[in-house]
Amino acid sequence: MTLPQGPVAVVGLGLIGGSLARALVRAGIDVVGWDPDPRTMVAAEAAGVRAVESIEEACTAQPWLIVLAVPLVVVEQTARAVALAVSPGAVITDVGSVKGPVRDAMVAAGLATQFVGAHPMAGTEHSGFHASHPDLLVGVRWAVTLDDTTPLDGFCSVVELLVEVLAGTVHPLSDSAHDEAAALISHVPHVVATELLNIVAHSSIRDVAVGLAAGSFRDGTRVARTDPARTEAMIVENAGWVAPALLLAARDLERLAQDLESNAPTGWFFSRGDALRSGGADLGSQALRTMVLRADDRWQSDLASWGARGGRITGIGEASSLVVEDPQV
Amino acid sequence: MTLPQGPVAVVGLGLIGGSLARALVRAGIDVVGWDPDPRTMVAAEAAGVRAVESIEEACTAQPWLIVLAVPLVVVEQTARAVALAVSPGAVITDVGSVKGPVRDAMVAAGLATQFVGAHPMAGTEHSGFHASHPDLLVGVRWAVTLDDTTPLDGFCSVVELLVEVLAGTVHPLSDSAHDEAAALISHVPHVVATELLNIVAHSSIRDVAVGLAAGSFRDGTRVARTDPARTEAMIVENAGWVAPALLLAARDLERLAQDLESNAPTGWFFSRGDALRSGGADLGSQALRTMVLRADDRWQSDLASWGARGGRITGIGEASSLVVEDPQV
Repeated sequence: MTLPQGPVAVVGLGLIGGSLARALVRAGIDVVGWDPDPRTMVAAEAAGVRAVESIEEACTAQPWLIVLAVPLVVVEQTARAVALAVSPGAVITDVGSVKGPVRDAMVAAGLATQFVGAHPMAGTEHSGFHASHPDLLVGVRWAVTLDDTTPLDGFCSVVELLVEVLAGTVHPLSDSAHDEAAALISHVPHVVATELLNIVAHSSIRDVAVGLAAGSFRDGTRVARTDPARTEAMIVENAGWVAPALLLAARDLERLAQDLESNAPTGWFFSRGDALRSGGADLGSQALRTMVLRADDRWQSDLASWGARGGRITGIGEASSLVVEDPQV
Repeated sequence: MTLPQGPVAVVGLGLIGGSLARALVRAGIDVVGWDPDPRTMVAAEAAGVRAVESIEEACTAQPWLIVLAVPLVVVEQTARAVALAVSPGAVITDVGSVKGPVRDAMVAAGLATQFVGAHPMAGTEHSGFHASHPDLLVGVRWAVTLDDTTPLDGFCSVVELLVEVLAGTVHPLSDSAHDEAAALISHVPHVVATELLNIVAHSSIRDVAVGLAAGSFRDGTRVARTDPARTEAMIVENAGWVAPALLLAARDLERLAQDLESNAPTGWFFSRGDALRSGGADLGSQALRTMVLRADDRWQSDLASWGARGGRITGIGEASSLVVEDPQV
């Protein structure tokens, strides 16, 4: 396949949007970019991005793809601005760490049938265009989310950009599967790391604890040392999936504490994760095969179900054919 | 000062005992060693340790220091065996990760006035003499614990060995201050890392989560991927301090979950650890001074209180004088 004609428009040139724009420019792709911050625009232009003065101008540059790389709190208003100027053939994607609320914003703006959700599993503790780098999003895992309104051609074009231009791997998922997984592997870990820091900070032996702290504590609290307001925003955005996981964790920790206090057996707690320790659930290498997507009324749910079992897309061929690795059994 | 005459006896030549023995041999110190495993004895002898055939023989080799580097479950029986053969002038220390139970064993064996507790803040996920290394315990932080029965000369000799021979830093603490700090910076982090793995292992979207997992999850669960039985033993040994900290964490996580579910403010949770984020509680470099210990009836509690505020010993001079860094204020 070849990518559709026209530039890629990146709306929002922070850490992720800026890194994406830089990587695309380096790959020889025409990138139109906009950011509300004038200094960011100057820096982006120096990095080869074609600067435009508004979201409307980005849309009327006839991009085949518009990437919304803005904070989640402004996704809804950004989607409305895009809807006013976008051509019906353009594909819209995003890079948000929570997918359900982004789709809601797209539906509200009337953009659902042009939308393909995306979330790169990469980042740093920094933010802003000055922290962006053309390598940040190269070779990483992407969740690409779909529902029964997702356009087939748009999906394939986004996948092609991610796997061919950015050397990434694509995990096709429903929004809810993504958001639940993100709660477990990112949001809950951020919360418990924050709590590890909290209980030391409020302990009467804080100075001893900090003085003695070795590797396990530093590793366990690394992600909590970044901006707590940013962590809070991320957690609140995915509250629906994070809250039940936290309740589960709280119940387990309480039961363990009670068993420790009463000298009851505690093996139930320590051996429960053995399935992951053995590495059996980790994704090893797997034979590649070709999967051809057909524009029937089930391709989106079939693909998302396959992705939920661990399937991933590593390449793309002619006419909606994907190169895939099947789930491990 | 100079170290007392005679060899150092190391009882138990696993990861920590073996690494200590190797470091002392490298420093030119005569090391007598014993381990119940015959293959370990052969390997230790090849590494320059003077092998003896029993704990009794180790004690009668006239060591100035006997280091108990055995698992906590056999500390009590080992202490009894040492008590049968040790000379009254020898100093006894250990390397256990929990100090209260070790002191109890020493008191029960009648060895309290010869005992100086020690715990190196180092280790790896491996175990056994074959995993030991002469550098493992070089330049690390040690908690050295004392109570009002701790001998002054013995304390100073142990500190001298740790700071002069092993280039370590010594944090003098009460057993309870150590054990509470260890709960917060090591045992509770191990528990929550285990729980992060548990909830993913038992999730319906396990394969998605494992497939997408990036840095924060891998860092947060690193210490949970080692032998869970060893983690469990460590937690159970310090149950008295771990259980209340887990209850505190469980309560905080539950309250956060409830606030997330009801759209209540959550800033109370995310900003609570700011004192540690700013780095204000971290130990920077501090002017060194000399502290002379006097054999009055308060030196142990004074020193432990000073250590509890963050004081640490970095060197040793003549006649019970320590080179110290005072707590940061």
